[in-house]
Amino acid sequence: MKKRPSGKEGFVQIAGAGPGDPDLLTVRTLRALESAEVVLFDRLVHPDILKIASSATLIPVGKKRGQNQELRQDRIHRLLVRYAQTGFRVLRLKGGDPFVFGRGGEEALALKEAGIRYEILPGVSSFYSVPELSWIPLTYRGVSASFGVFTGHEAERSSGFSWSCAASMQTAVFLMCKENLARIADRLISHGRAPSTPAAVISKGSTPEERIVVSTLAEIHGEAASLPSPAMLVVGEVVALRSVLQPGLTDGHLADRVTA
Amino acid sequence: MKKRPSGKEGFVQIAGAGPGDPDLLTVRTLRALESAEVVLFDRLVHPDILKIASSATLIPVGKKRGQNQELRQDRIHRLLVRYAQTGFRVLRLKGGDPFVFGRGGEEALALKEAGIRYEILPGVSSFYSVPELSWIPLTYRGVSASFGVFTGHEAERSSGFSWSCAASMQTAVFLMCKENLARIADRLISHGRAPSTPAAVISKGSTPEERIVVSTLAEIHGEAASLPSPAMLVVGEVVALRSVLQPGLTDGHLADRVTA
Repeated sequence: MKKRPSGKEGFVQIAGAGPGDPDLLTVRTLRALESAEVVLFDRLVHPDILKIASSATLIPVGKKRGQNQELRQDRIHRLLVRYAQTGFRVLRLKGGDPFVFGRGGEEALALKEAGIRYEILPGVSSFYSVPELSWIPLTYRGVSASFGVFTGHEAERSSGFSWSCAASMQTAVFLMCKENLARIADRLISHGRAPSTPAAVISKGSTPEERIVVSTLAEIHGEAASLPSPAMLVVGEVVALRSVLQPGLTDGHLADRVTA
Repeated sequence: MKKRPSGKEGFVQIAGAGPGDPDLLTVRTLRALESAEVVLFDRLVHPDILKIASSATLIPVGKKRGQNQELRQDRIHRLLVRYAQTGFRVLRLKGGDPFVFGRGGEEALALKEAGIRYEILPGVSSFYSVPELSWIPLTYRGVSASFGVFTGHEAERSSGFSWSCAASMQTAVFLMCKENLARIADRLISHGRAPSTPAAVISKGSTPEERIVVSTLAEIHGEAASLPSPAMLVVGEVVALRSVLQPGLTDGHLADRVTA
């Protein structure tokens, strides 16, 4: 990588691309895409979003099959630092929001330690917008005034995680739940959540391949077993609002997608 | 209100305006602003955002002092239905995201019951983006892999709310916490949260008047007592990351604001 002749100082923007639809980019991230010289992007970022960065060097840094997560993350840190030190305007584009289950904090720390200027551009996070685009609000007056968000993998391995608390949240969202769906449902029920609680699994949310299964907590595993990853589980009475809120008539591609 | 001569069918977009900065609008909501004929907006929507809707009729429907919440909400439903029935393209613009503590679901239901076409446009919700713009990520590998979001007022009045669970969430966010700050901190501590847990109160997040106080759960009430509403409380080890992640050098107005 050659030093840029301008000798200009590099700069990194760590930005969230939203749930997938390019129209759900923020204006700020759209502008960052238009002005970036190098874009490091994750696997879940939609190809139409990358087309906006027409003059940038596009570098995929998504997880490869069998690749160690920590090695991959170290590589991303090294690439961010190198491109910025060489003087480029770098956009690190992540799905959803960079600070919500996105490891954006770790990337920010790596940049700070290397003395590189950076900023964070929030994005529309998937954990609420994907259910929302399927007419499931995480909160609804008289139904749910609080929610908890967990990962299928990590949360229970870390201190402070409690199945009984996950079971008692009015609305509970589990991300990356596919492999553990049966176990999550079992644990929630054995810790006191009613088996009849409405539950939904949304697979490949906000993409053209999105599929949703709505059932009960007791039966969701059987009914959603064939859905591909990534998938999220939403548990709570708010799930029953889907049939109430989904309009009969639709307009616009967002609505077309969620009612398909 | 006169019937439009075109006789065209009305349509409502219920959209989230994000935390305040117009650059954090989504592209889709920006377009909705540009094409709306009538905009019903909340008090927290930034004036610069309303300027984008230069050709629309702007109708403030924010809460007035002493006004009954339910009467206000009924009025919003009536206005939405009337303008849409008269044939207008209506934008209902709410702070943050319309389905996260935004009562957007209730407005959607009122429209559905009146047979009006509508769609939901997600926005950048404030409960994670405001902390994020202050360099507090709700999740961070090895620190927090889950979070719970509660309201100062409502959550504890509704079934399923448990102080011990709120106290045990790795990261807990309380919205509209100002009046109840002392009580929330007391309850969390009496239900097992360590008094030394890092805590932050962010007042008027993402506006030019934003102020943040970082302390411990035991002391946050005293230190944040003078901050004006609206304010949110973030409790958890992630709060300590603020001093780690905040860059010394800044660029762009987002970064300028959060490091001010």
